[in-house]
Amino acid sequence: MTERLDVAVLQRRLAEFAAARDWEQYHTPKNLAAALSVEASELVEIFQWLTPEQSARVMDDPDTAPRVADEVADVLAYLLQFCEVLGIDVLAALAAKIERNERRFPVPEGP
Amino acid sequence: MTERLDVAVLQRRLAEFAAARDWEQYHTPKNLAAALSVEASELVEIFQWLTPEQSARVMDDPDTAPRVADEVADVLAYLLQFCEVLGIDVLAALAAKIERNERRFPVPEGP
Amino acid sequence: MTERLDVAVLQRRLAEFAAARDWEQYHTPKNLAAALSVEASELVEIFQWLTPEQSARVMDDPDTAPRVADEVADVLAYLLQFCEVLGIDVLAALAAKIERNERRFPVPEGP
Amino acid sequence: MTERLDVAVLQRRLAEFAAARDWEQYHTPKNLAAALSVEASELVEIFQWLTPEQSARVMDDPDTAPRVADEVADVLAYLLQFCEVLGIDVLAALAAKIERNERRFPVPEGP
Repeated sequence: MTERLDVAVLQRRLAEFAAARDWEQYHTPKNLAAALSVEASELVEIFQWLTPEQSARVMDDPDTAPRVADEVADVLAYLLQFCEVLGIDVLAALAAKIERNERRFPVPEGP
Repeated sequence: MTERLDVAVLQRRLAEFAAARDWEQYHTPKNLAAALSVEASELVEIFQWLTPEQSARVMDDPDTAPRVADEVADVLAYLLQFCEVLGIDVLAALAAKIERNERRFPVPEGP
Repeated sequence: MTERLDVAVLQRRLAEFAAARDWEQYHTPKNLAAALSVEASELVEIFQWLTPEQSARVMDDPDTAPRVADEVADVLAYLLQFCEVLGIDVLAALAAKIERNERRFPVPEGP
Repeated sequence: MTERLDVAVLQRRLAEFAAARDWEQYHTPKNLAAALSVEASELVEIFQWLTPEQSARVMDDPDTAPRVADEVADVLAYLLQFCEVLGIDVLAALAAKIERNERRFPVPEGP
């Protein structure tokens, strides 16, 4: 039986992974925020010299596609670990943000 | 009845939000990766002059706590939009990464 | 008589500025590297939704031009402060890098 | 006879380097800002798990010291290329910024 893929399950596996290796000492919120931004920049690096059109086709390249997926995973891993150490519910934070943005940027009315 | 908070639901709401405002033209993978890294840096900015100990207590400050939650939401929003435009399953990417890391960094044996 | 604008003079003024305000306690290399990356991201933010063509014309916009100059100044300020606290000669480091790159990427010969 | 190390000389060498390799096509302000932020993050990466005290001693490590100098050179290289393509005088921008900051943050008076 496979565990369902959801954020809470992955977040718990990441916490257990760090605890088993005694890495929690490094996981201050400050360090995890820095690591998150470093991973986000590694994603930017893949795109930095591409045209907008080339950037839309990166998943067609068999060398680049797994790099992109890997960096995306790293960003989410550090984001979830950051939220874990600070007790932030990241999905609730995003839902609240979307609601604020829906009020802040109303859909333009049609003609 | 409220919709359950899960990644797929939030990802769909973000896609509808962008489509309704005709913002999809800006959402190239290159631009979304840049926006993701900008939001990650806004999170770093909150911590940049703090000691490790101060960084662990940011959620106790009633001014800082909502800023942290807000930046976390922005990072996840751009990450999900990036994955949406490239067709990447971010939870599967993270699960695969955790499995690779479990093989790459075996737990040290006890004494 | 005005002082000539050079890197060493500006670096000394930045060091005196920080010392006079007792800010040196915050200026660990780790914190200054983070601050540098935050400022670099603020520069990226100006460009994140622009096309390549729009990005080439940012200095024509009277609102954007001073923001760009301001972010550039912030990046250089933190870079010089970082190099100051670690005793790195940034111009010598760049000259050495250019020489390495000239060997690493030889100019393609003509036909 | 060696050329004096100054910013204008290095900036010209970087411009000639890019022109000789036909790389100017990639050097939009948007791409150069992204590359600058990527290099700044590579500097952050060196420090991300270090304590403040360890970060102050990075130049004592014979493996880490040249990496730090190399990343610093990369940051300055992209900053100068960015300023070159937009016609920004980076030293004048920093001097103006220091003067604004001296007015904005007056030195606290003594007792």
